[in-house]
Amino acid sequence: MAEVLKGKVLVAQGGGPTAVINQSLVGAVLESRKFPQVTRVYGAVHGVRGVIEEDFLDLTEATTHNLEAVAQTPSSGLCSTRDKPDVEYCRKVFQVCQAHEVRYFFYIGGNDSADTCRIVNEEADKAGYELRVIHIPKTIDNDLKVTDHCPGYGSAAKFVAQAFAGVNLDNRAIPGVYIGIVMGRHAGFLTAASVLGRKYPDDGPHLVYLPERPFNKKQFVQDVQDIYTKYGRCIIAASEGIVDAKGVAIASQFTGGEKDSHGNVQLSGTGALGDLLASWIKAETGIKRVRADTLGYLQRSFLGCVSEVDQFEAREVGEKAAQFAIWHNRDGSVVIRRIGDYAVEYDLAKLKDVARESVCMPDKFINKQGNGVTDAFIRYARPLIGELPIMERIAAPKVARMLKKK
Amino acid sequence: MAEVLKGKVLVAQGGGPTAVINQSLVGAVLESRKFPQVTRVYGAVHGVRGVIEEDFLDLTEATTHNLEAVAQTPSSGLCSTRDKPDVEYCRKVFQVCQAHEVRYFFYIGGNDSADTCRIVNEEADKAGYELRVIHIPKTIDNDLKVTDHCPGYGSAAKFVAQAFAGVNLDNRAIPGVYIGIVMGRHAGFLTAASVLGRKYPDDGPHLVYLPERPFNKKQFVQDVQDIYTKYGRCIIAASEGIVDAKGVAIASQFTGGEKDSHGNVQLSGTGALGDLLASWIKAETGIKRVRADTLGYLQRSFLGCVSEVDQFEAREVGEKAAQFAIWHNRDGSVVIRRIGDYAVEYDLAKLKDVARESVCMPDKFINKQGNGVTDAFIRYARPLIGELPIMERIAAPKVARMLKKK
Repeated sequence: MAEVLKGKVLVAQGGGPTAVINQSLVGAVLESRKFPQVTRVYGAVHGVRGVIEEDFLDLTEATTHNLEAVAQTPSSGLCSTRDKPDVEYCRKVFQVCQAHEVRYFFYIGGNDSADTCRIVNEEADKAGYELRVIHIPKTIDNDLKVTDHCPGYGSAAKFVAQAFAGVNLDNRAIPGVYIGIVMGRHAGFLTAASVLGRKYPDDGPHLVYLPERPFNKKQFVQDVQDIYTKYGRCIIAASEGIVDAKGVAIASQFTGGEKDSHGNVQLSGTGALGDLLASWIKAETGIKRVRADTLGYLQRSFLGCVSEVDQFEAREVGEKAAQFAIWHNRDGSVVIRRIGDYAVEYDLAKLKDVARESVCMPDKFINKQGNGVTDAFIRYARPLIGELPIMERIAAPKVARMLKKK
Repeated sequence: MAEVLKGKVLVAQGGGPTAVINQSLVGAVLESRKFPQVTRVYGAVHGVRGVIEEDFLDLTEATTHNLEAVAQTPSSGLCSTRDKPDVEYCRKVFQVCQAHEVRYFFYIGGNDSADTCRIVNEEADKAGYELRVIHIPKTIDNDLKVTDHCPGYGSAAKFVAQAFAGVNLDNRAIPGVYIGIVMGRHAGFLTAASVLGRKYPDDGPHLVYLPERPFNKKQFVQDVQDIYTKYGRCIIAASEGIVDAKGVAIASQFTGGEKDSHGNVQLSGTGALGDLLASWIKAETGIKRVRADTLGYLQRSFLGCVSEVDQFEAREVGEKAAQFAIWHNRDGSVVIRRIGDYAVEYDLAKLKDVARESVCMPDKFINKQGNGVTDAFIRYARPLIGELPIMERIAAPKVARMLKKK
């Protein structure tokens, strides 16, 4: 066993919230509280911004009952930030840690948060201050490197699957064309999850458009027309991040070019892309009933839709973070390794291997036409969303007509 | 006991689906199958359109297991129609009933469906044919006359409450202005349900705009600015059906004027209204992070969000329909009467008293400023949505700053 490093734990949450991000928080906090060398467990309010502003809650004094209830609550209980720290910012983070005798810093977030962890760790090293830094993964986009999948994805994927399963039933009752726009700027994992609630052979979504393949208007219209001819209805799942052949976001021309603090064009929180795709279908096919919904923020925050598997794993990556740091004196990013069907184990990757870059859907998960997903994707994703609610069609024989003979 | 009327039962579903419309279907079917004078139980596919086309399933041969699973499935299991029958159409409905020796016709739907029931009943009377006709209420809009509330409303209200509860947590983590557009053309009940998940005093939605009160842009901008100044964030729930002082739908100028088969402007299935309201806030207040979601079809069809109370009552109105018709030889519309806190009983209203006209939110449910709801509304609506999932904030003391003293 490594040398005992006495001091405080500091935990924070960054980036977009998920349904299970508080499971990771509570896993890290409760596990940390077990170690005698941990003098206090602090939580920073609003992520790294809360760190540099020394805006801390003393989670050592939160009741276990309170924390367990928080664990079941969606969205970052400590609140979040969109700040993307540079070296100077990270130096301040380190200095605050030093001032408060923090020896363990756990940051729950995506690839940007992993990069923050990497730099803070380096700054501590340079100063000769022992600071263990662990990145705890979370993202609904499922776009982190090394890990098999990301906590937060399973629950968002379940929401998307249940949304499209319901929409499919609705669209079957009153047929037409339905377009659902799903979150995911560069990675199509969440949009692909729209198929996970399909049960019968003609269930939608019938077409899935991902950011990994160029989106072509003409092909899109033809695809929809073909499905509509076959089934008398058509359900489309499209990623908010779909791009044309030149890599330009289809949505970009309709949002007035608003950019977030990372310099990205705003995609979420507007219905413009869905309305555009719907207008194309109406104009080019003559189909009258065309509807578009943008699933929006409900995907990552809806109260009451969580994957049991995701919940479980999110809790464990938080606990493992505390164990890797406090038992084993290690830095890194907690990763999930799939070792069975379905079984996982946890490991610690190097921070630099997870930081900054992200991943997209591999080719084997996307069909040849670029308008759907493969069985390999379904095999990959279905265990992550847990059980779906019951959904059944009426099974009864047809009755012979008496008035009209046709 | 009334004279025994031997023959078939025919059941159909009309209008927009709900999460529990199949509970009513299955309640009516299973109850009908118990009576020896019922020779067969038919289900019409796609509502009254299926009746005139004699597109029937023999539900006498559906297994109980199948039907119980269908009961738990959202959206009309027999599929639906937007047809609004005139007298000629209803005469055909009656003629088909006569040809198939149908003696009991149950139609699950809103006020238009009640009117269809009324006319079919009259046509049968004129022809001297004994046909019991019962309207089984359903609507997410909660806008039917006589009944205390409508099956289908509670589950849609629960979805909306959970959506806004989650959005509130998300918006607290990353503050800004959030606008959620809720279904409801004339009645604000569903939009009002957005408040039912509020727990802490600063929880959103902070502003609620209903079709029952004229919407004024200037007042709206001022309201949002006031809340934003107070809390540093603001969540707005607005009905898709909000109108200006002249009664013109705010959404109507952005949908290209598409009209449905009832001559109504399309409101759902487009993000235009939300985007418009967001653009006003951005332009007039200078607040940067403004997002708008349109909750869309998920409100009425999402798989896996159902109010236990709503589910229970939807089942019972179906069962009661069969009992009123077959035991008691009566025609009418099943209504729910609230007799306690919370307890209900069922009764049968005259078809003409429920048909055609609809109701809006009573004045006592809307605050004086016209931008929120009253406690009376919360008392009315909260029992209808059943239990909400756990949701809790971290309760822990603040830590004193060491570097910055402020």
